[in-house]
Amino acid sequence: MSIQTIKWVNGRVRIIDQTKLPNEFKYIHCRNVETLWEAIKRLRVRGAPALGVAAAFGVVLGLKKFNSSDKTKFLKELRRLCDYIGSSRPTAVNLFNALNQLKEIVSANKQKSVTQLKALIQKEALAIYELDRRVCRQMGDYGTALIKPKSNVMTVCNAGALATVDYGTALGVMYSAKKKGKQFQVYVCETRPLLQGARLTAWELLRAKIPTTLICDNMAATLMKQGKVDAVFTGADRIAANGDTANKIGTYNLAVLAKHHRVPFYIVAPLSTFDPKTATGKQIPIEQRHPSEVRGFGPVRTSPSAVNVYNPAFDVTDNRLITAIVTEAGIIRPPFGKKIKRIFVNSE
Amino acid sequence: MSIQTIKWVNGRVRIIDQTKLPNEFKYIHCRNVETLWEAIKRLRVRGAPALGVAAAFGVVLGLKKFNSSDKTKFLKELRRLCDYIGSSRPTAVNLFNALNQLKEIVSANKQKSVTQLKALIQKEALAIYELDRRVCRQMGDYGTALIKPKSNVMTVCNAGALATVDYGTALGVMYSAKKKGKQFQVYVCETRPLLQGARLTAWELLRAKIPTTLICDNMAATLMKQGKVDAVFTGADRIAANGDTANKIGTYNLAVLAKHHRVPFYIVAPLSTFDPKTATGKQIPIEQRHPSEVRGFGPVRTSPSAVNVYNPAFDVTDNRLITAIVTEAGIIRPPFGKKIKRIFVNSE
Repeated sequence: MSIQTIKWVNGRVRIIDQTKLPNEFKYIHCRNVETLWEAIKRLRVRGAPALGVAAAFGVVLGLKKFNSSDKTKFLKELRRLCDYIGSSRPTAVNLFNALNQLKEIVSANKQKSVTQLKALIQKEALAIYELDRRVCRQMGDYGTALIKPKSNVMTVCNAGALATVDYGTALGVMYSAKKKGKQFQVYVCETRPLLQGARLTAWELLRAKIPTTLICDNMAATLMKQGKVDAVFTGADRIAANGDTANKIGTYNLAVLAKHHRVPFYIVAPLSTFDPKTATGKQIPIEQRHPSEVRGFGPVRTSPSAVNVYNPAFDVTDNRLITAIVTEAGIIRPPFGKKIKRIFVNSE
Repeated sequence: MSIQTIKWVNGRVRIIDQTKLPNEFKYIHCRNVETLWEAIKRLRVRGAPALGVAAAFGVVLGLKKFNSSDKTKFLKELRRLCDYIGSSRPTAVNLFNALNQLKEIVSANKQKSVTQLKALIQKEALAIYELDRRVCRQMGDYGTALIKPKSNVMTVCNAGALATVDYGTALGVMYSAKKKGKQFQVYVCETRPLLQGARLTAWELLRAKIPTTLICDNMAATLMKQGKVDAVFTGADRIAANGDTANKIGTYNLAVLAKHHRVPFYIVAPLSTFDPKTATGKQIPIEQRHPSEVRGFGPVRTSPSAVNVYNPAFDVTDNRLITAIVTEAGIIRPPFGKKIKRIFVNSE
């Protein structure tokens, strides 16, 4: 696997325009933070870990235009940029964690000049990028044990290379398992309304030569009933202190089905997706998106234009439905609250 | 409500082409059984009760071309026509029940001439048509009690006027409740891959001025978790002797979710949808449809063309997940097996 989803190239942020996949593979070079903001908003770049990297690179892009040496003005501009980037999408906490990380670097180095601070921020953004590459591979190694030989696994949305810098979380586990010679098959839920499963995950898995079967989201239950699903692996957009997990709409649906059919349900997410300051899933903000996404797909209208629509981009899976969470710090099993606390207290 | 989904008009079968809705309201006049067969196969006419009527009308259409008075040849042609119509779609039992009903009329009147038998068949087909109109209204009356005032109900696929002659099963209950002045809101699952919920049910409910909200199939779980669903109502394509129910793919998914969230789950179906000779859901044949329905969205391709697809048109809901079945003989509650047996033994 080597899909370079997001990269800092010659002072610009290069991303794959994921709205064009799988029909067209096209890069976009973002020269300014406004272009990157639009790319995040329109889901040209998406996936919680990739959004963390995008947010950090966005700050670097934005600060390139700041030419004064006035520290007060600089700090004000940094806050403005962070607020602006933070206004793009509310749910994935990686984005806010990355912005906070940059703000903390500045707080810890207040005595330095504007030029030095800009350099520190760029270095930190690149470190966030590099860290994602490492932790995805680490999670892949840990998670491999959860894929049984000759098994069938299921996933939803895209938690692959396209959701991270270049490897993936849930799909990273599959790539690592494949590398170790494990044989398995993947059922991909298409993931309405924006079909990230059909468009992105099916494309990635075929590229990796992993046997893949695409289904509509409402077909998962009948597959589980027939005993054709041995485990479910998904990514995450935000994990609360108690282990409640926000992820792409439909994830909670799968978790309930998995519980009913006694199928293990695994979340794969780096520590940058944890939000230990948010107590439970109830406090996680859920992005609501435009009704037109549900009323049709792309240019195709399939419902009366007058119909009311409910279109949350995410749902929250209760911790009690989750069998384990795979992180770069190892596989966390219940009780999640206690173990998450231990990890984050130790790391502070 | 008055949508005339299927009607015998001047020696032809007039149907609404449901593949064109909601963008276009267009009738098709089937002059021969082949056109009707194609209309069934392509889902221009669909819904178990409507398919029962279509099958009966199909036999009448087919026999119009039979001009001999030779009884043996006539019986052979009748069998051929029934086999042909039965080859269109395998799951909805109404279709086979209607064909059997016509064959039985002929068996019981073997002494009659070919002309007389043709007249009897036409009369029986029209009786099946008229019966559907009556029983749908009767089910509507019985089912109304299950819709609580100011409640939110959920449905999947289209179990409305468009699935029957002119009134509906699950939606018939809603039309009757509305007529009685009940206030309620309906969440409609869009029902991938062919979007009968988005295209047909949303259109019907808006027409009936019932408050309607369209969702993607994978959003049902999060609504239930938020306490926003008070009951689920669906139609059925075949109900086995023990109450196991085949219906549009995604129905079993909703039934599992309803159980998990303690939401009542109701099936609304006429006795013509029961198949007391099939012991359990495991023996119900499930139609598999073309991968292209899942690989894209209408004319838009959304996944790599090489990806494998699983595309069952129906799933089976276990009887233990069903709160009650609304029929024209009243509301049946568990244990279903005993009660279904009583109804069908008494009616024989």
